[in-house]
Amino acid sequence: MTKTNDTKADEAKIRKLMADWSDALERKDVDGLVANYASDVILFDAIPPYKRVGVEEIRDTWTHCLPHFPETFQSEHRDITVQVAGDVAFAYGVHHIVADDHPAAKSWMRVTVGFRRIEGQWKVMHEHVSLPFNPMDNQAWSITDPEVLSQPDYSGACAGG
Amino acid sequence: MTKTNDTKADEAKIRKLMADWSDALERKDVDGLVANYASDVILFDAIPPYKRVGVEEIRDTWTHCLPHFPETFQSEHRDITVQVAGDVAFAYGVHHIVADDHPAAKSWMRVTVGFRRIEGQWKVMHEHVSLPFNPMDNQAWSITDPEVLSQPDYSGACAGG
Repeated sequence: MTKTNDTKADEAKIRKLMADWSDALERKDVDGLVANYASDVILFDAIPPYKRVGVEEIRDTWTHCLPHFPETFQSEHRDITVQVAGDVAFAYGVHHIVADDHPAAKSWMRVTVGFRRIEGQWKVMHEHVSLPFNPMDNQAWSITDPEVLSQPDYSGACAGG
Repeated sequence: MTKTNDTKADEAKIRKLMADWSDALERKDVDGLVANYASDVILFDAIPPYKRVGVEEIRDTWTHCLPHFPETFQSEHRDITVQVAGDVAFAYGVHHIVADDHPAAKSWMRVTVGFRRIEGQWKVMHEHVSLPFNPMDNQAWSITDPEVLSQPDYSGACAGG
């Protein structure tokens, strides 16, 4: 598909927003983490509750969570695809943090982010972060290497959601 | 935000695609389930592997999975928000199937779907389906009632992903 210069510029802006979020996470900067959410954003986070509505709920989540993150770590996205046209965009790929022997660093997470341009600024309307779960024992299924499409032994069982 | 007639019409088309998918699921119609996926769709399914790439992989998933679904059931979306502009759209909300005493019917799922209009037709480029997991025991966290934002006891632990 041919991309116009406008589309390329918008894709670059979306990728910059995601990089800024990643930098804010490394700094444990709550203001930076929520800087680009729309006021009525809906977050489907990796852990309960199943949704968080509005930027203040997400700010609370990070405020309580960041003290439990490693003291220092790197934050990294990979395999990010961006779809953008006009004033709506979405992006999807995987994210992890890199730190020795910390539970928050043991798996990549799947991430989908939905954007809308509001008064000239791209804002996050929706974010969905998750791990799959193993239906045989209901346990979250870690993504230790995004190159490896591992799965449980589904012999005779349902391998689809 | 003021919606143009075009935007309203596109939103109606997106909702119709999701309703058609839901009807195909109730009929266990694999062709119907994959009818509106782009060839290079990336699915983050509720269960491993963490991603499925391309319509044929998704077709295989459903072919193996549908025999393990209840004999008859209803499929239902709720709380669906649609963001659309130009040739890109995304939608998010929750989905479940309704059937007595079947494991596949015990929880709602969070669903995010990303669309692009290709040669005049809206196609699914990306889909993300998940449950959150409880970080205290790594178990998937069921959504039995979307009105209830339940969560584990996070006393002293991280309540954010």
